[in-house]
Amino acid sequence: MADSDIETLIKAMARLPGLGPRSAKRAVLHLLTNRDKALAPLLRALENAQSNVRECGVCGNLDSVDPCRVCQDPKREAGTLCVVAGVADLWAIERTRAYKGRYHVLGGILSALDGIRPEDLRIAALLERLKADPAQEIILALSATVDGQSTAHYLADRIRAAAPTVKITRLAHGVPVGGELDYLDDGTIATALRSRG
Amino acid sequence: MADSDIETLIKAMARLPGLGPRSAKRAVLHLLTNRDKALAPLLRALENAQSNVRECGVCGNLDSVDPCRVCQDPKREAGTLCVVAGVADLWAIERTRAYKGRYHVLGGILSALDGIRPEDLRIAALLERLKADPAQEIILALSATVDGQSTAHYLADRIRAAAPTVKITRLAHGVPVGGELDYLDDGTIATALRSRG
Repeated sequence: MADSDIETLIKAMARLPGLGPRSAKRAVLHLLTNRDKALAPLLRALENAQSNVRECGVCGNLDSVDPCRVCQDPKREAGTLCVVAGVADLWAIERTRAYKGRYHVLGGILSALDGIRPEDLRIAALLERLKADPAQEIILALSATVDGQSTAHYLADRIRAAAPTVKITRLAHGVPVGGELDYLDDGTIATALRSRG
Repeated sequence: MADSDIETLIKAMARLPGLGPRSAKRAVLHLLTNRDKALAPLLRALENAQSNVRECGVCGNLDSVDPCRVCQDPKREAGTLCVVAGVADLWAIERTRAYKGRYHVLGGILSALDGIRPEDLRIAALLERLKADPAQEIILALSATVDGQSTAHYLADRIRAAAPTVKITRLAHGVPVGGELDYLDDGTIATALRSRG
């Protein structure tokens, strides 16, 4: 039925989060029957993303420039660092426009179940960054899940040991317990940022 | 926040059927953080599909070869032609393995609302095909919607005028009224094919 080029494409699409085999098939048919308006622009966008987008060497954000635009922006407060699990969370916080400091992307959270250990995350980079460029405040903006909160505890201990004077804060209550940061509405994130402590 | 290369990619992904802006963002983050395992294979598959997959000049199916593999297959009955609205429907029928004839893909169905007229579909190509290579039977396998059934009526009239001896059949009752062919389970499609008349 579907030939191998088409099947390979359907399988690659079906591996994306949020797409199953059936919706991948519909997406592929849409691409193949709308070449100029759908396939070509998607191909160009993927090529550009592959060759241009990289991880910021300072904070771990994804951008076409390194250091990323947040790290390069002189208007961002250098003394405040917001630690997030991933780039999706950084984008969620940026969307609120309630934060003017900089970021540090961990690249995940500690998880005994998934076998993610401190050395798998950008924790050493965070401590080195604090040593080279001391911050006044570090906001641990991690999800209110068990793993998120134990990562925050672990990080607070490591940061206190490395930089005893830095103020460590967390997002205020208002983040629903068990909720994923990336799924929250902007207002809740903004409120939690403002009443952090 | 997200830079222009990333935003362009998110927008191109969000235009796919079944993906909204939020799921497109998650898919893009997945691609950018899994370059070797997700981004590179998807890019390669899209490039191959773009350069290799084309519309079959005979039936309108999508394949890497032209004529497509169904049209080239000597085991398929040349005397039976199944008329479908789109490639998704062709794939749905192939999946059942209940059909051994060939196809003709219309590229849509007549619709006053969407302004789709007979000359927008591959109807002239179907009639020419029948003239050059007369079929014994034509199965009008169109969705059991109002537009699908009026397209079938219109096609039956045109086919009878062009090839008076050909037997025109339709999928048997069993296709739920108002249902889209592509969403049906294989068993229902197979049953409807077998008791066609």
